[in-house]
Amino acid sequence: MKVIKDSVHDHLQVEGVARDLLDTPPVQRLRGIRQLGTVSLVYPSANHTRFEHSLGVYHLACKALEQLNVEGAQAERVRAAALLHDVGHGPFSHNLEPLTHRRTGRYHDDVDHLIADGAVGDVLRDHDLEPERIAGLIAGEGRFGQLVSGELDVDRMDYLVRDAHHTGVPYGTIDHERLVRELTFVDGELVLDEGNVQAAESLLVARALMNPTVYSHSVARISKAMLRRAAERLLERTDTDAETLQRMDDADLIVALRSCEDTQEFSRRLDERDLFKRAVWAEIDDVPGGVIESDHGAVREFEREIAERAAVDQECVILDIPGRPSMTESTTRVMVNGDIRQLGQQSPLVEALRAAQYSQWRLGVYSPPEMRERVGRAAVDVLGLDIEGALVSEVRDGLDTTLDQFVDD
Amino acid sequence: MKVIKDSVHDHLQVEGVARDLLDTPPVQRLRGIRQLGTVSLVYPSANHTRFEHSLGVYHLACKALEQLNVEGAQAERVRAAALLHDVGHGPFSHNLEPLTHRRTGRYHDDVDHLIADGAVGDVLRDHDLEPERIAGLIAGEGRFGQLVSGELDVDRMDYLVRDAHHTGVPYGTIDHERLVRELTFVDGELVLDEGNVQAAESLLVARALMNPTVYSHSVARISKAMLRRAAERLLERTDTDAETLQRMDDADLIVALRSCEDTQEFSRRLDERDLFKRAVWAEIDDVPGGVIESDHGAVREFEREIAERAAVDQECVILDIPGRPSMTESTTRVMVNGDIRQLGQQSPLVEALRAAQYSQWRLGVYSPPEMRERVGRAAVDVLGLDIEGALVSEVRDGLDTTLDQFVDD
Amino acid sequence: MKVIKDSVHDHLQVEGVARDLLDTPPVQRLRGIRQLGTVSLVYPSANHTRFEHSLGVYHLACKALEQLNVEGAQAERVRAAALLHDVGHGPFSHNLEPLTHRRTGRYHDDVDHLIADGAVGDVLRDHDLEPERIAGLIAGEGRFGQLVSGELDVDRMDYLVRDAHHTGVPYGTIDHERLVRELTFVDGELVLDEGNVQAAESLLVARALMNPTVYSHSVARISKAMLRRAAERLLERTDTDAETLQRMDDADLIVALRSCEDTQEFSRRLDERDLFKRAVWAEIDDVPGGVIESDHGAVREFEREIAERAAVDQECVILDIPGRPSMTESTTRVMVNGDIRQLGQQSPLVEALRAAQYSQWRLGVYSPPEMRERVGRAAVDVLGLDIEGALVSEVRDGLDTTLDQFVDD
Amino acid sequence: MKVIKDSVHDHLQVEGVARDLLDTPPVQRLRGIRQLGTVSLVYPSANHTRFEHSLGVYHLACKALEQLNVEGAQAERVRAAALLHDVGHGPFSHNLEPLTHRRTGRYHDDVDHLIADGAVGDVLRDHDLEPERIAGLIAGEGRFGQLVSGELDVDRMDYLVRDAHHTGVPYGTIDHERLVRELTFVDGELVLDEGNVQAAESLLVARALMNPTVYSHSVARISKAMLRRAAERLLERTDTDAETLQRMDDADLIVALRSCEDTQEFSRRLDERDLFKRAVWAEIDDVPGGVIESDHGAVREFEREIAERAAVDQECVILDIPGRPSMTESTTRVMVNGDIRQLGQQSPLVEALRAAQYSQWRLGVYSPPEMRERVGRAAVDVLGLDIEGALVSEVRDGLDTTLDQFVDD
Repeated sequence: MKVIKDSVHDHLQVEGVARDLLDTPPVQRLRGIRQLGTVSLVYPSANHTRFEHSLGVYHLACKALEQLNVEGAQAERVRAAALLHDVGHGPFSHNLEPLTHRRTGRYHDDVDHLIADGAVGDVLRDHDLEPERIAGLIAGEGRFGQLVSGELDVDRMDYLVRDAHHTGVPYGTIDHERLVRELTFVDGELVLDEGNVQAAESLLVARALMNPTVYSHSVARISKAMLRRAAERLLERTDTDAETLQRMDDADLIVALRSCEDTQEFSRRLDERDLFKRAVWAEIDDVPGGVIESDHGAVREFEREIAERAAVDQECVILDIPGRPSMTESTTRVMVNGDIRQLGQQSPLVEALRAAQYSQWRLGVYSPPEMRERVGRAAVDVLGLDIEGALVSEVRDGLDTTLDQFVDD
Repeated sequence: MKVIKDSVHDHLQVEGVARDLLDTPPVQRLRGIRQLGTVSLVYPSANHTRFEHSLGVYHLACKALEQLNVEGAQAERVRAAALLHDVGHGPFSHNLEPLTHRRTGRYHDDVDHLIADGAVGDVLRDHDLEPERIAGLIAGEGRFGQLVSGELDVDRMDYLVRDAHHTGVPYGTIDHERLVRELTFVDGELVLDEGNVQAAESLLVARALMNPTVYSHSVARISKAMLRRAAERLLERTDTDAETLQRMDDADLIVALRSCEDTQEFSRRLDERDLFKRAVWAEIDDVPGGVIESDHGAVREFEREIAERAAVDQECVILDIPGRPSMTESTTRVMVNGDIRQLGQQSPLVEALRAAQYSQWRLGVYSPPEMRERVGRAAVDVLGLDIEGALVSEVRDGLDTTLDQFVDD
Repeated sequence: MKVIKDSVHDHLQVEGVARDLLDTPPVQRLRGIRQLGTVSLVYPSANHTRFEHSLGVYHLACKALEQLNVEGAQAERVRAAALLHDVGHGPFSHNLEPLTHRRTGRYHDDVDHLIADGAVGDVLRDHDLEPERIAGLIAGEGRFGQLVSGELDVDRMDYLVRDAHHTGVPYGTIDHERLVRELTFVDGELVLDEGNVQAAESLLVARALMNPTVYSHSVARISKAMLRRAAERLLERTDTDAETLQRMDDADLIVALRSCEDTQEFSRRLDERDLFKRAVWAEIDDVPGGVIESDHGAVREFEREIAERAAVDQECVILDIPGRPSMTESTTRVMVNGDIRQLGQQSPLVEALRAAQYSQWRLGVYSPPEMRERVGRAAVDVLGLDIEGALVSEVRDGLDTTLDQFVDD
Repeated sequence: MKVIKDSVHDHLQVEGVARDLLDTPPVQRLRGIRQLGTVSLVYPSANHTRFEHSLGVYHLACKALEQLNVEGAQAERVRAAALLHDVGHGPFSHNLEPLTHRRTGRYHDDVDHLIADGAVGDVLRDHDLEPERIAGLIAGEGRFGQLVSGELDVDRMDYLVRDAHHTGVPYGTIDHERLVRELTFVDGELVLDEGNVQAAESLLVARALMNPTVYSHSVARISKAMLRRAAERLLERTDTDAETLQRMDDADLIVALRSCEDTQEFSRRLDERDLFKRAVWAEIDDVPGGVIESDHGAVREFEREIAERAAVDQECVILDIPGRPSMTESTTRVMVNGDIRQLGQQSPLVEALRAAQYSQWRLGVYSPPEMRERVGRAAVDVLGLDIEGALVSEVRDGLDTTLDQFVDD
């Protein structure tokens, strides 16, 4: 058994298969990947890594299994999955996921290939655990997959509290001890026991408040978009392929971008926090539906057109279109009067938070500050946006829900 | 200047008129009044007092005034009001307020009589401050009254954080530093500056989550109702009058209830946490409108009838009807695109939280555990409730949104 | 099982005999007794009670027993003792202990009489536990008594962290989780396992820093001495006896002192924080050995003489002589290289902290502020003190190691 | 003005020259340097950077200057120095300092060359501040240099609290707000005001407890020694020079070590936490004085001899000899009875902590686990150590004062 001191959960006890997995390269690699990618450019204390988060998820999984009276091989499988659930992450965590997914077809939770072979596979088999079942749990499959990846998973419970601790933003401070204590299985479904509608709501609210303040802060989005564009150039201009990129850690990518001539300018801007600014920041109702649905090729084409019309270099224009809002927690199951109810049916908050998400959605067009004006006007034309609402020079930070001191555009 | 160490805000600096007010009996008296009354019967760590809360409100008022560039006599008035804003509280804070208000016509923020005379009045006049203007601020009057008692007052910012710290319930953990920093006056109105819709929402959400979990927890409501009933008997059966009651602190009232023969049974029950249980716990839609609007006389009459029908002593029945839900924060003003907007117009959360309040509203009928069944059935008849939804023996804790471990009925 | 939310340890699980003991009057009574007595006059947030502390000690005892693999009746006995260990406390905890001990011969951990009879005795016997064995554990007897009352007891681990949380003074922030994890029995002795010299030192240091800053802060000592004097008058002038006093809670005593004519002045001073001030504050080397050893009769006689010489009323003079410093933690046992060692042998810190204690020891003479000068000079004469060092008017706060802002003399 | 959210001090306000310095490359570069180097291999949450620490030091400097009533250019100079005080750090902060110092003659606080030119120099001159005076402050020169680098500097106040927050080890939790409040200048010396002997002691104790538990934890020392050895090979075997190394950030060095054939094995071991183990761990009294005083050449020669005698490759042996213990805080100045006293004279703790440092001092010899036995015996012979005390196979973790769970040797 090994005991590890964590700044969030204090002492974590690591034993069994988890103890052996801990020392494998794919798990140790997570020490080199920041949990929140470029968010540290907004909240400078947010340097925590996927490694400590994985330990935290493992810790909460142990508590949950104890609460649910799950033991033996089933429990070991879940514990292994909890510790391993993030080994599929590339550098800067989610930041590059759309890019690598386009080229490898895999998201970070698609890990069969990573845990079947090598040290991880060996450890799992030594403990008589089948790698493919662990991979299934990580993908959220089956009764116990819900614990690792689902509406009530311990992943979310850890990251909300941990991200709050490290950013200093208090909104993620949920009552994770209570949530874990109230988990139960009813008809094979993971649910919160009677009397926990509010506890379920608090989880939803925490994410709804952390989202625009932290995860989708405009500066985090801008720097993430710049990083993604730089990584794409790296793939296009060098012999680095997407698989290799995906196995890098943060240091590898940072240095690769510094070293490649074609990415040095982006790299310098990120290193010196000399970021692009918003030229356009448009609400969902001001954006034509077709634009929202654009695939990557269409986005690149729009950028080319905007650059041309503004008479600037194409690499000075980044178009950033988030997916349509979704709210998976709305299907969180809670016991009410002896029945399983979906939170979305039970709580008026769910609908309101969904509406809030819509009102917070923004399409962004970013460029070097000195070209904002030109790029903004060109983008309005090319994308067919409503000019009143979209141009940053008109609306200023009006609709921005974030700390304006960080926004400095 | 005096520096005081506080468990929430760390070091507080008390100076000027506040320094002199600190040593007056009405302010020192607040050390003897628990902030949350009977809530400590649910959350045993919640023993914080109105004194430390008043210091915290004073502290945040100082920060806000600095932020707003308010100085001189105006600032001193606000600081005095912040420190004095709770001197009108009786024992157990809000718990007895309906009782004392019926008999004295005064709520806790009606403090003219308390600060015009005596040590407080002397100090104020020594500092050339007019007591009646301070009383006006405490009542929320005028431009600066909003800071002390309004939608964006520092009172709420302190109590949410403080109550979270002392109960251990994390929902009240708002970003009070940011809220204070973003305050500004526009057209004489206290508003949150651009970019703070979400900060305003977080304040609303914090209260919405703390309310059922802490402030209106069913056991807190039961014990509060018992305390109120006991205090009412004290006024009826002894020569203690409402004015005297109002000037007591917690210790005075506790001992008075222990000493008076007619209140000893209630007193013993509260001391030993041998509380009444819920016989009825009815949603707003299952209660006839006329019942909800009952005045105190009608409530007592209902209790008499229920007791008679159940063939129990009248003091074994307590009927507890909360007021209809209200949500004053919906008028919180936030700058959006250069305009002052009311949060209720801007945020879909406001309406949702209002709906949540309605769904959490409960009429309670409480009695000794061994009579619950009988009293419950009698109450359903007398009050004309929908029997399916109201009887606790039927619904159990189903709709209760609180930790069932504390509810133990 | 019952789960209780605590502001220090979060969720506490109370089960078995502890669950039943929880609802007994002697345990519920602890809700009415502040953990730190008059310390709340220095640190206004320090209103926590013996009840929540008792729950915390029970919680840590459960963890320690789990760590030590103790189960069955033995474990139930220790858990019962942990929850009950403070039922012998009178109002204001330790503040009146010298007074009640003189008259009843009992300290707060002498509880045979309290747990043999009544509800507590009934519960214990229902669970087949012998009250006298529980009382023995509380008195620190036997192998397991060390866990409840000894150098490494869970009592201290809880109170240091809890008092730090509630006062805001960070010095008590020990690593209690680690301490509990490292407990082990060797040859029947409770010891810290290999590699924990420093953890043991940190426990010692925490107490050494909390002591003068919190527990023996000069204002806490003055107000405690005033309270003790008032309580002594209550016993002398009314028919209240020491047994009755001992069974009061804080509210009972506060109101009794307000109600009795002979104690009203002390009571008013405590209520309004209009305290005596230090007339003398003398180091141990400036005080004749005979004075330090004075028994209570001799102290009263000194006070009489000082008052006479200063021509003031006797109740205006309080002589406060602490016992000689002791440091029980010096015998804390720690494993070093496979041997049990006493911390005092192993760590140079122990001797240094003992020396620090000596240098912090102070004899105090207190009086109303306006008589300080006269009383101080008289006391120097009567007690034969070294006048240079002792008179407060000479030394000011020089040697005081506490926050001067609270000292205001 | 810019407001930045910090996980330790909450909102930091950055203005004036600091605002402009913030955006310079040398300051932004600090985002890429971990505050505690390899300590994150022991405490996985310890990923905080020199950037956030620098902001914290700046923040506390502002508070201290306010407290000391220092304004104008003098204050701007101190604020600039606070923000810039760590720009001289190389990758992994202090870890490589002995190596780079040997080759460049500069420690991290020797920054003339870094702040005279480039963006930093420009900003300073724009604000009419002389770079050389700022460099002087950073080196601790003059009256105000004490604030930035001295016994009572704000650097230490920030790092103790920050390192405690991020490692989870509570020992560093000092009362920094109080310390800053009590600073004053007497006769040109920075001192703590009357009544703060204990506050000064707490600062000392915090470092004394954090030191072996965090900063000099055996695993942190081993990994640091391995990193240093690897970096030395990088300088020897490639054309990277010490100046270049010194300007790298963590990512640069990590990737350089991964890329260079001669350092790949060390790099792999560090990446996978497959570390050397202790072959020898000897107390100061068991080591000949001449060995303790060895310079770098002598150390390398010892390693060569040990490797030869043990018949292993030289790169499998690392000899790690810490400097003799020192305790700079012993000269911390505190006001006592109107005189300036050095803490070392006033407090018996200083001497005790010095003794504790001696007893914690250890010479280490590290090697791959499978060679420990052989290397250990050879080292005992070559260094002339007392064999009883030094061989790890004999003493095990006996004298180790750290968490054994992390030590796993």
